[in-house]
Amino acid sequence: MPFIHVRLFEGRTTEQKRAFAEAVTRETARTLNCAPEAVDIVFDDVKKSDWASAGKLASDPK
Amino acid sequence: MPFIHVRLFEGRTTEQKRAFAEAVTRETARTLNCAPEAVDIVFDDVKKSDWASAGKLASDPK
Amino acid sequence: MPFIHVRLFEGRTTEQKRAFAEAVTRETARTLNCAPEAVDIVFDDVKKSDWASAGKLASDPK
Amino acid sequence: MPFIHVRLFEGRTTEQKRAFAEAVTRETARTLNCAPEAVDIVFDDVKKSDWASAGKLASDPK
Amino acid sequence: MPFIHVRLFEGRTTEQKRAFAEAVTRETARTLNCAPEAVDIVFDDVKKSDWASAGKLASDPK
Amino acid sequence: MPFIHVRLFEGRTTEQKRAFAEAVTRETARTLNCAPEAVDIVFDDVKKSDWASAGKLASDPK
Repeated sequence: MPFIHVRLFEGRTTEQKRAFAEAVTRETARTLNCAPEAVDIVFDDVKKSDWASAGKLASDPK
Repeated sequence: MPFIHVRLFEGRTTEQKRAFAEAVTRETARTLNCAPEAVDIVFDDVKKSDWASAGKLASDPK
Repeated sequence: MPFIHVRLFEGRTTEQKRAFAEAVTRETARTLNCAPEAVDIVFDDVKKSDWASAGKLASDPK
Repeated sequence: MPFIHVRLFEGRTTEQKRAFAEAVTRETARTLNCAPEAVDIVFDDVKKSDWASAGKLASDPK
Repeated sequence: MPFIHVRLFEGRTTEQKRAFAEAVTRETARTLNCAPEAVDIVFDDVKKSDWASAGKLASDPK
Repeated sequence: MPFIHVRLFEGRTTEQKRAFAEAVTRETARTLNCAPEAVDIVFDDVKKSDWASAGKLASDPK
């Protein structure tokens, strides 16, 4: 705790997730006043065909 | 916002998800009084072996 | 199953949620080809001060 | 209802999930005073490279 | 990890949640072969007017 | 998208959440290579009596 769940389009690399985890853990500890050890982050890759905005799948042409 | 997350058994086609996204975005805008552009929908396919009801996996014989 | 989770800004009435549930259950059954009895919907009211877009809380002036 | 969502590292077998579902449904019914038929459980496998604790991915060396 | 999220109708007591947490942590450790210290559980109370099954709010007469 | 959901113990102020939103949106855009406008963050306050670690509620004495 805090427990952070991130939905993002698939395609980001492990290097990007690692950089995100480092930076967001540091900023979480700083702004929410907790130990970095208390921060958990889970990434959840989403296909473009599984996300719709304004009624259209992100995989469809605009 | 609104943000709608849908867990469903895997196997539905992109056509079905597209039809769901269109219809549910329209009904969301109508009933909750918001712009269709404000509606996000994420689909989350679940294997039958990852869902249990009444203590039994959906992939097991009844 | 399907299980539908809806995050929305607080302030919608029970009448609006009832209308949403009726319409979305009907459209879910039609587009995903399942029984209406199989559809569960959970509403999750979110305060404007608990939602941020583009780095700004929705409760803050733009 | 109750609806139970379980995030766990990937690698557990269907046999383990089946045993979990049986035991947790029984204990849920006993402690929360509901029918076993009312209990739903969904498993969500997470890769070690998608989970970070204390700013480090679980797939990285400590 | 494992991280367990439980949605349940509001009204259960802290004693019931405590009993659930004890029993489910024990059964999780046993069936998924992990340390009890690794198990986190979060409860999420849901009002009957925020849950719909088969298109009807649980707070409405059947 | 990305969509970030944060569970945290209740008690943090709006100022803390605002600072978190600013910093995490900036770091998300930088590390995941997306526009800040694409980042949504939702906070979910959790009571100590609704969180259990190692089988014990966080509101109970250790």
